[in-house]
Amino acid sequence: MALIVQKYGGTSVANPERIRNVARRVARYKALGHQVVVVVSAMSGETNRLLALAREVMPDPDPRELDTMVSTGEQVTIALTAMALMDMGVRAKSYTGAQVRILTDDAFTKARILNINENNIRKDLDDGFVVVVAGFQGVDEHGNITTLGRGGSDTTGVALAAALKADECQIYTDVDGVYTTDPRIVPEARRLDTITFEEMLELASQGSKVLQIRAVEFAGKYQVKLRVLSSFEEEGDGTLITFEEENMEQPIISGIAFNRDEAKVTVLGVPDRPGIAYQILGPIADANIDVDMIIQNTGADGTTDFTFTVHKNELGKALAILRDKVQNHIGAREITGDDKIAKVSVVGVGMRSHVGIASEMFRTLAEEGINIQMISTSEIKISVVVDEKYMELAVRVLHKAFELEQA
Amino acid sequence: MALIVQKYGGTSVANPERIRNVARRVARYKALGHQVVVVVSAMSGETNRLLALAREVMPDPDPRELDTMVSTGEQVTIALTAMALMDMGVRAKSYTGAQVRILTDDAFTKARILNINENNIRKDLDDGFVVVVAGFQGVDEHGNITTLGRGGSDTTGVALAAALKADECQIYTDVDGVYTTDPRIVPEARRLDTITFEEMLELASQGSKVLQIRAVEFAGKYQVKLRVLSSFEEEGDGTLITFEEENMEQPIISGIAFNRDEAKVTVLGVPDRPGIAYQILGPIADANIDVDMIIQNTGADGTTDFTFTVHKNELGKALAILRDKVQNHIGAREITGDDKIAKVSVVGVGMRSHVGIASEMFRTLAEEGINIQMISTSEIKISVVVDEKYMELAVRVLHKAFELEQA
Repeated sequence: MALIVQKYGGTSVANPERIRNVARRVARYKALGHQVVVVVSAMSGETNRLLALAREVMPDPDPRELDTMVSTGEQVTIALTAMALMDMGVRAKSYTGAQVRILTDDAFTKARILNINENNIRKDLDDGFVVVVAGFQGVDEHGNITTLGRGGSDTTGVALAAALKADECQIYTDVDGVYTTDPRIVPEARRLDTITFEEMLELASQGSKVLQIRAVEFAGKYQVKLRVLSSFEEEGDGTLITFEEENMEQPIISGIAFNRDEAKVTVLGVPDRPGIAYQILGPIADANIDVDMIIQNTGADGTTDFTFTVHKNELGKALAILRDKVQNHIGAREITGDDKIAKVSVVGVGMRSHVGIASEMFRTLAEEGINIQMISTSEIKISVVVDEKYMELAVRVLHKAFELEQA
Repeated sequence: MALIVQKYGGTSVANPERIRNVARRVARYKALGHQVVVVVSAMSGETNRLLALAREVMPDPDPRELDTMVSTGEQVTIALTAMALMDMGVRAKSYTGAQVRILTDDAFTKARILNINENNIRKDLDDGFVVVVAGFQGVDEHGNITTLGRGGSDTTGVALAAALKADECQIYTDVDGVYTTDPRIVPEARRLDTITFEEMLELASQGSKVLQIRAVEFAGKYQVKLRVLSSFEEEGDGTLITFEEENMEQPIISGIAFNRDEAKVTVLGVPDRPGIAYQILGPIADANIDVDMIIQNTGADGTTDFTFTVHKNELGKALAILRDKVQNHIGAREITGDDKIAKVSVVGVGMRSHVGIASEMFRTLAEEGINIQMISTSEIKISVVVDEKYMELAVRVLHKAFELEQA
């Protein structure tokens, strides 16, 4: 008997028929003697419907009220899922985030989980219930409803699995696993049977939208066994996300990730002195804007250019902050923004022990005449920023260059 | 400066435009220096939409899960209303029933309020916020979400007004006050400027669907000044519901109420001995079925016929309980049910000091050939049950007989 957390996304619970399908799958696991916790998202389209409604009364909706409103999406799904299970004779009980007490900070619309009280859930599991928990939401210490931001249901699933010390956290989605890259761009893309946490982390953060990045971080931190599966197929083991030790023979490169959601901000002609990075990024962080790549080049004239990327939606806000509060203060010459960029990354644990991956990547892009605007590297990843219009071409030629279509 | 609780029903918040209208009215009261608590229902149609969705996965939805689901209706409205206020520059903050902590019992779908913690609301009011509270819902001692049943938002409004010792509780609806009877049936029906709590209680319970009965009970118990107004008209003082002392010169009859939602259950040929009423109604009460009129006639042969009315929706359940658990046990000859009935009531505080109201009522109905199936009286009301098809005729002739069209 195992304790399994299963997370189903919005398309898996899009209508009553699909919710019944989810219930049937859960009932099968229960019948095998497992304890099952189900985490569900809002029915697909519901969150956007609520957002649109909010914008009709307040063009830039108040974050606290927006979370109160949007969290109703999952609240409806948990009740429907519990009822579908009961209708099949399976005892079930739903919990909102506040009812579990998934304690978060108070960063409305992008809150972080601080603590989960698993006592009630464990008691219900021991009493034979399937427990259905609302993903994506929590409650702050003052009882305000919070949401974890888009995709946060994955994080809820993994965090619950960690709190309950579950044997496995299964993420059901509309794809049947993690691929070497998006099959819509490269038809030869191949499903990976296993992938390491670190690679998954890089792939997720780089835009392979199978799993939310925070979910992968959580899973790595608490060593949660994580599996990505299709909710539309009865068979298949999906992709198991493993710790590196378990995979002695890693391929050099696991996949190509990409992301068109970022925009580039450049602070030009900054006097090159200590503390500049903090003076530029401090106000950005204070405004709760997430920054991804950061690059600084020192020029010959005692000034430096400072470039970083933010989510496209926050480009305007970031530029306004820099122009209003930072530019004069640090004596920068100019602040520019560009949202016509894309990031393409080559990811693989194996590249640690292999030289020449970077040069192979740059050569491949150069042969296609694709100019590289920014470069950023980590232990297991090389990312480049290119003009948005070259993104698909870049992904295709890199997939081929690293022979990812072959097992 | 007064503390006012304003309650807006589903049609008053049916869409973003109407929610903005509500916000404008609230903002006007706030601008006059009043403290305002707003109680809102779900947008009209939303509760039914959710109910239908629930029935798609579970034909007889689990009550706990249903409450979790249906309560999202008001949760959306509070957020939208708070946002509409903020968009007009009015500071506002929403609360679900659980967030206020409107503590109820655990009778899901028809819970009763036990206690309200008004501390947070009072603090927000003192800090200058308009507080927007979800009607119709609460939370039990275990943190389960409960609903008060249809129309429960009125009760929330009055209960909050009582807890906060508000100066007035204003119930905004799609009518501009309480009428002598339904103007759709009697065009000459007249709006009453004032009505006593007791009359209102009888009118509400008898089916004048302006206010929910429990709300009126609450208002009477805690001496809350209650006013019914139209949310679609800028002007008008509606109908003030008063304590009797304030109205020395009462008209004899205030109004004619009616109700087609009830069904009649008759237990025929019961041996006439002590404890029979309890043996019949005990199992009905245990099943949480509300009973309205109760009549017992003793026959000449040592047996008695016992008749009572329940909501039409619960007729089948009531009959099943009596046939399965009661009939043989008490030795009753037969159990019959009839849902083709209507109740018509004449209501007025003044009838206490006037004889002859009952005989005038019965004479009027007899003249029209309307047979009376059951009679029930209270201090300020006489109700009769008649064949459903005669209901409208009965209301019209009684309205005329008691000259209610004249002020």
